[in-house]
Amino acid sequence: MRIEELDTPVLSVDLGALEGNLARYQRYYDEKGIGFRPHIKTHKTLPIAHLQMAKGAMGLTCQKLGEAEVMATGGLGKDLLIPYNIVGRQKLVRLMALSRQANVTVAADSDYTVDGLSEAAHADGVTLGVIVEVETGGKRAGIPPEAAVELAKRIDDSPGLELRGFMSFPTSPNVRPLIQQTVDLFDAAGLPHPIVSGGGTGSALVAHETPELTEYRAGEYAVGGAGHLAAGRHTVEQCALRVVATVVSRPTEDRAILDAGSKSLSADAHQIDGKRSMGYIVEYPDARLSSCSEEHGQVDLSLCDTKPSVGDRVQILPIHPCPCVNEHDVMVAVREGRVEAVWPVHARGKIR
Amino acid sequence: MRIEELDTPVLSVDLGALEGNLARYQRYYDEKGIGFRPHIKTHKTLPIAHLQMAKGAMGLTCQKLGEAEVMATGGLGKDLLIPYNIVGRQKLVRLMALSRQANVTVAADSDYTVDGLSEAAHADGVTLGVIVEVETGGKRAGIPPEAAVELAKRIDDSPGLELRGFMSFPTSPNVRPLIQQTVDLFDAAGLPHPIVSGGGTGSALVAHETPELTEYRAGEYAVGGAGHLAAGRHTVEQCALRVVATVVSRPTEDRAILDAGSKSLSADAHQIDGKRSMGYIVEYPDARLSSCSEEHGQVDLSLCDTKPSVGDRVQILPIHPCPCVNEHDVMVAVREGRVEAVWPVHARGKIR
Repeated sequence: MRIEELDTPVLSVDLGALEGNLARYQRYYDEKGIGFRPHIKTHKTLPIAHLQMAKGAMGLTCQKLGEAEVMATGGLGKDLLIPYNIVGRQKLVRLMALSRQANVTVAADSDYTVDGLSEAAHADGVTLGVIVEVETGGKRAGIPPEAAVELAKRIDDSPGLELRGFMSFPTSPNVRPLIQQTVDLFDAAGLPHPIVSGGGTGSALVAHETPELTEYRAGEYAVGGAGHLAAGRHTVEQCALRVVATVVSRPTEDRAILDAGSKSLSADAHQIDGKRSMGYIVEYPDARLSSCSEEHGQVDLSLCDTKPSVGDRVQILPIHPCPCVNEHDVMVAVREGRVEAVWPVHARGKIR
Repeated sequence: MRIEELDTPVLSVDLGALEGNLARYQRYYDEKGIGFRPHIKTHKTLPIAHLQMAKGAMGLTCQKLGEAEVMATGGLGKDLLIPYNIVGRQKLVRLMALSRQANVTVAADSDYTVDGLSEAAHADGVTLGVIVEVETGGKRAGIPPEAAVELAKRIDDSPGLELRGFMSFPTSPNVRPLIQQTVDLFDAAGLPHPIVSGGGTGSALVAHETPELTEYRAGEYAVGGAGHLAAGRHTVEQCALRVVATVVSRPTEDRAILDAGSKSLSADAHQIDGKRSMGYIVEYPDARLSSCSEEHGQVDLSLCDTKPSVGDRVQILPIHPCPCVNEHDVMVAVREGRVEAVWPVHARGKIR
């Protein structure tokens, strides 16, 4: 069966492009002697995670405990990093169970998180690896180097925990001074840091400019997307993840409506060249997919020389692959247009 | 069990608030003699749709064929409107099957859609109700009144189809002239319009100011949300839908990180009072939930007198309930904090 025979909207991944991306990035990390720990939050799918490990990844990154449970159950528990503050009794019970099935490291940025992890691990008789999350501009979790080293001391002193270093996100070469400062503070305090973990596809191929990094986390590298295309990191052909959609309305000369909206692409939008974009339409590069309702994608065709008709199909490179994949129960794996597999999005909706 | 005992993030709906909203809006439509056709895309859940019908709704609105299939299978096929251009062989086969189980009306805005519907219905020996979608500012599907009446003639002449009138979205009193014009054009052409359907929660309680409307579609009225709160349409207590989240990080004095990001709230953001908002935090009304990554919600606490600690729980009113619900497999129904039911989100992910 060919992808053209499947009804729309449908999420597809091109296997040739995917395999090329996995090989290209893994080769870089192998050449530079940096560990590569792909982030499964982008694809959320066991077969792709298995491909990443088979290519030489040292382990995997999972953003939530539930994602890590899916990977461990799928035979991928060799070395899992959950770069997240895991708090609360229910999750700690699950984390302890997981740490008996898999080799797990988690992140922390507060005494509260560390004390909860220690209490649970000590009571359960397990040793849990913990790294500190250092703020390097992500404005998510994460604390400055001075606070990080204080927290590292607490981890090192906590029963049931093993201090394994620290992490940051994003980790462009611009933030190397913060990474160096943190390493120096750890060293001065005599604290171990076998893991110094950087992350973010944007700077994934310049990780070696921060030689303190022992490993790197990237997710979107595997499939690209409209933002990576615009930034020159992926060609159209290298953008493996595509939502195939149908034009369901051409209400005006300059407007097309697709059957893929935020329930197919996610509601995420980024600025590209100063304009709001929710995706790139492969067949109509001058079209602008600027807004979506749940079931409609609104396309401005005013700059297009040729324009699609109602019933035509288009391929959309999503602006943000991770939440896009999360909207789908399955992903259709194609090679040269032929459907080779229909993969469940195994870790879809694992919000806890 | 109480909601406080459930792990976070978790989607909850307060039954008292929900029932109050359903009764309040249904009473308005009953008083005004306008048919009420709630849109199930907001809650996507059979028990809420059953409540809406039990309160007196004339029928239901479903945005995609897959949603209508779920409703029909759930015993709710009495009168279903799918305000969408259904195109393509696979969907037409399903639509014909559905129209044998349920009373279905669909929308169209092009010859292409109408011809496909007619061919399928005629071949299958069924009669399918069709209304024309008229553009009234939604910039989705929909055509101007003059084009609408031409398409209505085509529907009226097409075997297998029954012309049932027209629809628009959104339908504030401001667009009444367009509705009147369309009615006049239909009348002048001798075309029936038993359905003149308006839509949108924003203008739901002023539908009577457009007396041409025979029925009205609204979805978010049932649960409210941060935008409806800001607009004065719902009080905090009337906002039934809440994502309960935990503070997992307090990286700075003025910033909190929640365990609910775009995978729990959707990536949708609206402007409220000129500022980007992804939700309203009930316990901290001066906090601003301005951005999310997939698993983190970033909260600006700079205007808050009291601030939450790591481990504290908060209730978030999502900015856009419809895609928020679509992120969840289940919805927990609570009354005065007690869990009365755990409802599957039956129509989640029905993108086709």
